[in-house]
Amino acid sequence: MGMWIGRGRKARRCYGFDEIAIVPGVVTIDPDDVDIHWKLGNLRFEIPIIAAAMDGVMDVQFAVELSKFGGFGVLNLEGIQTRYVNPKSVIERIISASLEDFTNVLQQIYEEPIKEELIEKRIKEIKEAGGIAAVSSIPQRAERFAQIAQEAGADIFVIQSTVTTSRYISKDKPSLDFKALKKRISIPLIVGNCVTYESALELMACGIDGLLVGVGPGTACTTRGVLGIGIPQVTATADCAAARDFYYKQTTRYVPIITDGGMSVGGDVCKAFASGADAVMIGSSFAKAKESPGKGYHWGMATPHRNLPRGTRIYVGTTSTLEEILYGPAHLDDGSQNLVGALRTAMGMCGAKNIREMQLVELIIAPAIKTEGKIFQKAQRIGMGK
Amino acid sequence: MGMWIGRGRKARRCYGFDEIAIVPGVVTIDPDDVDIHWKLGNLRFEIPIIAAAMDGVMDVQFAVELSKFGGFGVLNLEGIQTRYVNPKSVIERIISASLEDFTNVLQQIYEEPIKEELIEKRIKEIKEAGGIAAVSSIPQRAERFAQIAQEAGADIFVIQSTVTTSRYISKDKPSLDFKALKKRISIPLIVGNCVTYESALELMACGIDGLLVGVGPGTACTTRGVLGIGIPQVTATADCAAARDFYYKQTTRYVPIITDGGMSVGGDVCKAFASGADAVMIGSSFAKAKESPGKGYHWGMATPHRNLPRGTRIYVGTTSTLEEILYGPAHLDDGSQNLVGALRTAMGMCGAKNIREMQLVELIIAPAIKTEGKIFQKAQRIGMGK
Amino acid sequence: MGMWIGRGRKARRCYGFDEIAIVPGVVTIDPDDVDIHWKLGNLRFEIPIIAAAMDGVMDVQFAVELSKFGGFGVLNLEGIQTRYVNPKSVIERIISASLEDFTNVLQQIYEEPIKEELIEKRIKEIKEAGGIAAVSSIPQRAERFAQIAQEAGADIFVIQSTVTTSRYISKDKPSLDFKALKKRISIPLIVGNCVTYESALELMACGIDGLLVGVGPGTACTTRGVLGIGIPQVTATADCAAARDFYYKQTTRYVPIITDGGMSVGGDVCKAFASGADAVMIGSSFAKAKESPGKGYHWGMATPHRNLPRGTRIYVGTTSTLEEILYGPAHLDDGSQNLVGALRTAMGMCGAKNIREMQLVELIIAPAIKTEGKIFQKAQRIGMGK
Amino acid sequence: MGMWIGRGRKARRCYGFDEIAIVPGVVTIDPDDVDIHWKLGNLRFEIPIIAAAMDGVMDVQFAVELSKFGGFGVLNLEGIQTRYVNPKSVIERIISASLEDFTNVLQQIYEEPIKEELIEKRIKEIKEAGGIAAVSSIPQRAERFAQIAQEAGADIFVIQSTVTTSRYISKDKPSLDFKALKKRISIPLIVGNCVTYESALELMACGIDGLLVGVGPGTACTTRGVLGIGIPQVTATADCAAARDFYYKQTTRYVPIITDGGMSVGGDVCKAFASGADAVMIGSSFAKAKESPGKGYHWGMATPHRNLPRGTRIYVGTTSTLEEILYGPAHLDDGSQNLVGALRTAMGMCGAKNIREMQLVELIIAPAIKTEGKIFQKAQRIGMGK
Repeated sequence: MGMWIGRGRKARRCYGFDEIAIVPGVVTIDPDDVDIHWKLGNLRFEIPIIAAAMDGVMDVQFAVELSKFGGFGVLNLEGIQTRYVNPKSVIERIISASLEDFTNVLQQIYEEPIKEELIEKRIKEIKEAGGIAAVSSIPQRAERFAQIAQEAGADIFVIQSTVTTSRYISKDKPSLDFKALKKRISIPLIVGNCVTYESALELMACGIDGLLVGVGPGTACTTRGVLGIGIPQVTATADCAAARDFYYKQTTRYVPIITDGGMSVGGDVCKAFASGADAVMIGSSFAKAKESPGKGYHWGMATPHRNLPRGTRIYVGTTSTLEEILYGPAHLDDGSQNLVGALRTAMGMCGAKNIREMQLVELIIAPAIKTEGKIFQKAQRIGMGK
Repeated sequence: MGMWIGRGRKARRCYGFDEIAIVPGVVTIDPDDVDIHWKLGNLRFEIPIIAAAMDGVMDVQFAVELSKFGGFGVLNLEGIQTRYVNPKSVIERIISASLEDFTNVLQQIYEEPIKEELIEKRIKEIKEAGGIAAVSSIPQRAERFAQIAQEAGADIFVIQSTVTTSRYISKDKPSLDFKALKKRISIPLIVGNCVTYESALELMACGIDGLLVGVGPGTACTTRGVLGIGIPQVTATADCAAARDFYYKQTTRYVPIITDGGMSVGGDVCKAFASGADAVMIGSSFAKAKESPGKGYHWGMATPHRNLPRGTRIYVGTTSTLEEILYGPAHLDDGSQNLVGALRTAMGMCGAKNIREMQLVELIIAPAIKTEGKIFQKAQRIGMGK
Repeated sequence: MGMWIGRGRKARRCYGFDEIAIVPGVVTIDPDDVDIHWKLGNLRFEIPIIAAAMDGVMDVQFAVELSKFGGFGVLNLEGIQTRYVNPKSVIERIISASLEDFTNVLQQIYEEPIKEELIEKRIKEIKEAGGIAAVSSIPQRAERFAQIAQEAGADIFVIQSTVTTSRYISKDKPSLDFKALKKRISIPLIVGNCVTYESALELMACGIDGLLVGVGPGTACTTRGVLGIGIPQVTATADCAAARDFYYKQTTRYVPIITDGGMSVGGDVCKAFASGADAVMIGSSFAKAKESPGKGYHWGMATPHRNLPRGTRIYVGTTSTLEEILYGPAHLDDGSQNLVGALRTAMGMCGAKNIREMQLVELIIAPAIKTEGKIFQKAQRIGMGK
Repeated sequence: MGMWIGRGRKARRCYGFDEIAIVPGVVTIDPDDVDIHWKLGNLRFEIPIIAAAMDGVMDVQFAVELSKFGGFGVLNLEGIQTRYVNPKSVIERIISASLEDFTNVLQQIYEEPIKEELIEKRIKEIKEAGGIAAVSSIPQRAERFAQIAQEAGADIFVIQSTVTTSRYISKDKPSLDFKALKKRISIPLIVGNCVTYESALELMACGIDGLLVGVGPGTACTTRGVLGIGIPQVTATADCAAARDFYYKQTTRYVPIITDGGMSVGGDVCKAFASGADAVMIGSSFAKAKESPGKGYHWGMATPHRNLPRGTRIYVGTTSTLEEILYGPAHLDDGSQNLVGALRTAMGMCGAKNIREMQLVELIIAPAIKTEGKIFQKAQRIGMGK
């Protein structure tokens, strides 16, 4: 499976969304008839779309709204919501910072300690408003926070860092025992991020309920530039899906995988499922929603890292309501709206009745070469036309 | 034929016009001596070029003019011509809409119901002026409209949607039976769009007379971005041509395939034939004609889709007459004019006496890398030079 | 040697200068000690560089100057020099035409008939000033013009069209018999352009003395866009070099091949030899010379084509003397000056003592990806820096 | 290992930093626990980072500062420091030259003869301030200068030219005998640049202590454009690393290889080690340091070449202190700061305990396709946003 990149050194060619396309089927299905639900532990969701744990996208209100539409969002327990009683004014500072300052401003803002009472408060606010309360932390704080979250009534706990493995070696820092944690808490546990078959298998063997897939692909993420590490999402998703299917054969336990990051339009979302995903986690697309706290801005979770920031602030603008992003009607022709409609239509064109069948449709390698026509059209849109 | 894109997942590399080139032959032929006619059912056309069913390109007048030059155009029965008695003022509204509004404006304009008496009227107008009347509808309305069209004197009926297959599954919507329809109408039936060998074979087995090839390649089309679905035109054409040739061997019935979309210059048209096409369908190139109704603008057929628009409005300007586009003389050096001359010259350089021989010439893979010189030259043309 | 581009259809991957690089040798040689002479028939030239038959580059004066430096240039007998007694004022009109008009202006200017007495006059002017007189025509006029040229004292005759093959089929036009012509004239005959092994062999078998290699690669050429025809120069050169070596084995007659077009910097010239060339033909680089008639402008030979122009006008500016372009010293760091020095240095680094050895050095495939640094540097140069 | 690029001609596909990425490991390690030291002869360095012998980057002061942080820099004995008693004013002239003039200005400045007493003086200045004194010359002057340098107290001698081989052929110029030189001097000898397995083996067999790897990859380098010669750094590093490992097996002598050039961000540095490097040599990143003499400008060593300049002047700006570049904290999110932190973090994510293990981590081929999001983000940063 590898190509020579030097004497005695082989490397596998990996693929991202821009390099592949989906092949239509021999049978087409009415989009209204396809089934797109998915399950996480005992929870069932009508749409396989999750909002990323980004402070520009997710707050209590957004979590509640998204739950009403059949999905859910993850609130970052390491973020602004649990550091500040009044997060609005803090977000205001971030989005008004100049381009030169914003890394510094972010680093400073995230120095404020996390308050455990705010963890409890945010979860209860979501639950009282009838939403799904999904919350996340980094591995180092997962034991403590998972306990607090579960007691406060959280539905789902997410453990997330740039690269998470079941084995961690340190001379003086304690490492998280996923198996032990899994025994102590009863709510579904999602862990990530992961991009390889081997790590996915090991994490599944720890008893986790869902796996986040993706290192370095998001628009607000600079991991690949800073560290050189990353795997394009099509290959990462296909590899982790293979681990899921192998683990399922061995154990009959099905651990859904969630492709996280790198999807900017409906077509990318469709490709993630065609690559093997059970659900997708989205940041930048939701940042465009009128309901999102960042007012059209978003930034990665590793952006405020004290010593080695690996993210940036992106302005996408506020173009639509959450409902339009999920269910349309689309008022733009660029694939950023009606993601659910796009997924249903694509599944219909592929003859895929449900997500499991969509995971098996034919893919081709077809680089997205921008023709002059497309470039011209783009140019027109950004204001050079007419 | 596939490459690994992930564990247990293979994908075929597919190719578009920008990635290939034609190899000159060992013998050259005088361009005046090559034969470029083609046949559809019992109809014979002197040039293998069809105008796409786009409202910015095709109206009664354009259909008549193109017929005089040896080709034909398709009038969209789902478009403005059959919704409005006076289409000119409607087109005026579309091309004067702002960039932010035009998707909305289009969606609104196409809400107006189709009038069956206008279908009859348009067809008769074309026939009275001595043109070829080719008209199109989506599969859901094909049974009704084909009947009306044939009675009104249409020469060709086209059934067209983003992806069309002979099998369609729906709980509550009736599906079109191509075989039954084919028995009821006697005029040639073109069906599309299609991009795979299997679907092409199944559609041909239904008795259709011509096949449109292409999903997602046109400049005004955003299907690949919105749905992730699409196959580059060289591979799609070669695959469907293989189906045509296999079906011909089996049945001795020859079903011509028509490459539809993605060709912006004469070189692309030549490559379509070299990939296996019997004819080509063109939108954007004809939008540049002084005779075209859109005054230099065009937009895709799926652009006004109510819930999930998959197209955009493109401005190409009005650079030449229809005659110059087809037969020259070319006053521009960019390959947008004298398409027939370009095809004849290319066939001559390849030593191909007719379209069937042109389908067999040697192709190479040669990505169109823009050198600095070419970019500079482009820059000069768009206004940075002298 | 092919890859599948569709069912039943294979294509070979071909390569251009931007996609390859030269590997340094295990031995290095002092650049002053490498030998770069070549031979055409009985003529010996000290440098393997020829100026293209472009009206913006070549006139009597330029032919004389280039001869002094060890090379030669080709005067186009179909061009301005033989249509007008006073070509200077005509060139003035071309370079002062607006971007919209220049194709029309060119088409008009080249309508003026060729005068046979001017053919004689130009050749004699070159010879009287001590230069090498090499002149060219298209195949249709070669018989007549070759006769006139030889009688006027020309040293070399060149027959050139976009694609030239030894076999040409036409109902009513006579075809050129290369063998017969070769018997009638005694001066060396260069023929082109050609890009395939088979055609090269057939042309060599006609007795020609040199072969021009290249279809569609030059900066002023738009053949690939207009006709879809073209082969990248590395592969074209390697294929024709293989034909030359095979023909030499068979006949012990060595027919040098001349890579024509697509080389914009010294590195490209070096790669042409490393791909198998015996000499190179250059247009755009010489257009930068203060001695060239086009004052920094050049345009392709097919640009004024009456019906299907396949070229454009390029402005490169007047940056240096002919001596600096050939021998340095270079005052620019971009590889456009001191082409002979670059070739000598590259040969030294490869351990190649002469052109024959340079044709055998190792090549790698290494796409010229522009890094941000390089783009930045470029941006600085075109005026955004300091 | 090769692909056909023409008849009878094969070429190997080679890879650069932009085309690969690092795969995370199954085990992760605390970044504080990884070991990044390396050895050159008997010298041990805490960080595997060397400053390039560029006049815009290295002077006495910079050498001293970098030594304090655990690395070292190379002072160019052919540069300004040994030609001028007061280099500051000379650098001022270079950085204030206009874009049109600077190649000329550089050529003129480097005409000034090298003063041997200045060689002695600079080395003593570094040693007196407690720094590592590493100095470089071209092969032609290496015998004389190595003697002087060693006597003045230098720690390391570097012999560097574009392409250096152990065998050099010239009619009238003496060639350097590396073996003989190695016997005469006792301090470690680094030689380069080299990009092939065979040359690396031959140079190691001469007894050298370290090998510089890289031809044509740096931002200030235009060798590939001017000469067509160059090998992308991932393949060059892997090939020379294979030579090092083979030579080590044969002789048990370990000759470290130093990847030189082409690394613009932390991710590239990490990839160099993952490709097989023992240390990296960096220019452009250090040019951004407030401590560097060029005040944000740098230029290649071959830029002032009298006859064939192969480099240019780049402005990178002064963005940070040397400490921030090496150890952070990073105030930018683009990977240009905290190179040591980035290397440690990447090694931790790969489960690599030391450099030798990092040389063996898994790589993938994953072209750095710029998505619209990334381009947008870039555009924002350069001033189009907010």
